[in-house]
Amino acid sequence: MNEIKIFCPATIANLSCGFDVLGLCLENIGDEMVIRKTTAKGIKISKIEGAQLPLETEKNVAGVAALAIYNAVDVAYGFEIEIYKKIKAGSGIGSSSASAAGAVFGINELLGRPFTKHQLVDFGMKGEAVASGSEHADNVAPCVLGGFTLVRGYNPLDVIRIDSPNELWATVIHPQIELKTSEMRAVLQPMISLKSAITQWGNVGGLIAGLYTSDYELISRSLHDVVVEPLRGKFIPNFEEVKKLSLENGALGAGISGSGPSIFALSKGFDTAQKVANGMQTIFEKTTIPFEIHVSKINAAGVTIIE
Amino acid sequence: MNEIKIFCPATIANLSCGFDVLGLCLENIGDEMVIRKTTAKGIKISKIEGAQLPLETEKNVAGVAALAIYNAVDVAYGFEIEIYKKIKAGSGIGSSSASAAGAVFGINELLGRPFTKHQLVDFGMKGEAVASGSEHADNVAPCVLGGFTLVRGYNPLDVIRIDSPNELWATVIHPQIELKTSEMRAVLQPMISLKSAITQWGNVGGLIAGLYTSDYELISRSLHDVVVEPLRGKFIPNFEEVKKLSLENGALGAGISGSGPSIFALSKGFDTAQKVANGMQTIFEKTTIPFEIHVSKINAAGVTIIE
Repeated sequence: MNEIKIFCPATIANLSCGFDVLGLCLENIGDEMVIRKTTAKGIKISKIEGAQLPLETEKNVAGVAALAIYNAVDVAYGFEIEIYKKIKAGSGIGSSSASAAGAVFGINELLGRPFTKHQLVDFGMKGEAVASGSEHADNVAPCVLGGFTLVRGYNPLDVIRIDSPNELWATVIHPQIELKTSEMRAVLQPMISLKSAITQWGNVGGLIAGLYTSDYELISRSLHDVVVEPLRGKFIPNFEEVKKLSLENGALGAGISGSGPSIFALSKGFDTAQKVANGMQTIFEKTTIPFEIHVSKINAAGVTIIE
Repeated sequence: MNEIKIFCPATIANLSCGFDVLGLCLENIGDEMVIRKTTAKGIKISKIEGAQLPLETEKNVAGVAALAIYNAVDVAYGFEIEIYKKIKAGSGIGSSSASAAGAVFGINELLGRPFTKHQLVDFGMKGEAVASGSEHADNVAPCVLGGFTLVRGYNPLDVIRIDSPNELWATVIHPQIELKTSEMRAVLQPMISLKSAITQWGNVGGLIAGLYTSDYELISRSLHDVVVEPLRGKFIPNFEEVKKLSLENGALGAGISGSGPSIFALSKGFDTAQKVANGMQTIFEKTTIPFEIHVSKINAAGVTIIE
């Protein structure tokens, strides 16, 4: 095998109560990448379509992630990467992570799979750091592993993959405004009340329990963020209105995807997820803000080979 | 059925990262209670052995809990309660909760089980409030339900019961010093860093995942408390030494039981739990502090009928 084409899915991080630890993988939105072996050693980004991104390997998320895995092996050949971006940069659904995860997954396949998927998350984080300024696995982990992922901790990286309940669907709206991750970081408070923290970890526990037992009601009762959403929600146009209508339309819960501006809702079943999408659409059609809406099952596979 | 004798097990609350939300039920230490129907209406505490506790129904934990369930039904008879305390008051392994849980469980049985176990937790909390000043379910929930319990939240009370992995054992040492719950509350900080909070809820998620998948290594990696233990540990004699030796002896993790002074360790298998107990013993034998050590499997049943 000298060349593969892969699908690199979008992901939702900071899943309500699971700020900085819980993420999930989407199914029908993602980038495509072609990765092929080259006689020249090293990593070359040969083509980028769909986004204005640097072709220099060391400045490109996919390039840096690719170098991380490439430098961990000793081979006489190199790799060339073509990136076909479909996930918009800054959308809050893991655009840069899709590139990082795709690069390391694809190269690992062409190398004959010397590394486990958990190791790939570690390599992918190096690329993610180019985009966000710090290594984190919130989006890379669900993109590589699929399903839900819990980043229990770092030093060393400890990621737990959790199967999604079968009927769980996500609805995501991306209002196309610019929100800088750095600014959304700045609104966070360095200290929080013990009371809020207890509420939050009670909900994290409930959400994890709900996922393992496919208890949709428990998932719904647990999908609350009392720590970050109150600070960031106000920066996202119509956030409260979208959340309220989504819940009225039957969603189990709704919140900010990543650090925004995308808003997600989780629902039991496609019909409800589609109804939630329709509701989001009616709200944003009244504005001048361009938007995209995705309805997706949770993606169990993560990055996959298309050809 | 006019009379039953029940076993009311000890419990561990504030399970490491799960401060205020996670608890478990022990198997071979607990109180006994006899509860019988009386022709006179109302609740009467007729006998207490093993502890100096008030016989007045309204001042007694079991009495108040009993009144909560009794006042929720309309029957022409009453109940009489005998309490045989084996769990020492102030030990940090749910002494008052055992009485509260036992009273509501026993009365529910004699009433013909009109209430679910989850409803019993709610009644039990009323009794617990007499002892601790506020209604909480940390110990009442595992005592009534058995296994591990997660109190996701209150308003309304939301308790999730989680089966214990089969080979999980607890070792508990009770150094017989007096630590007031109110004082241990006072050392808590009202604000904590967001960073610590994230670490804590990552670990709560990991612990719950470990319990569902019987992943002892994951349980071990998750049994850390970066929020409360650093503040309370210093009030418990030899806490750090006991914890360190327990981990050296193979325990998966160790921490403060409830608000102390008892210290617990969790281990895979009886042999390790016993080795951990032996280690704790060597440490406290060098002191003048009287102590008791219990080695117990996790109790799946909770309160049970003996006769």
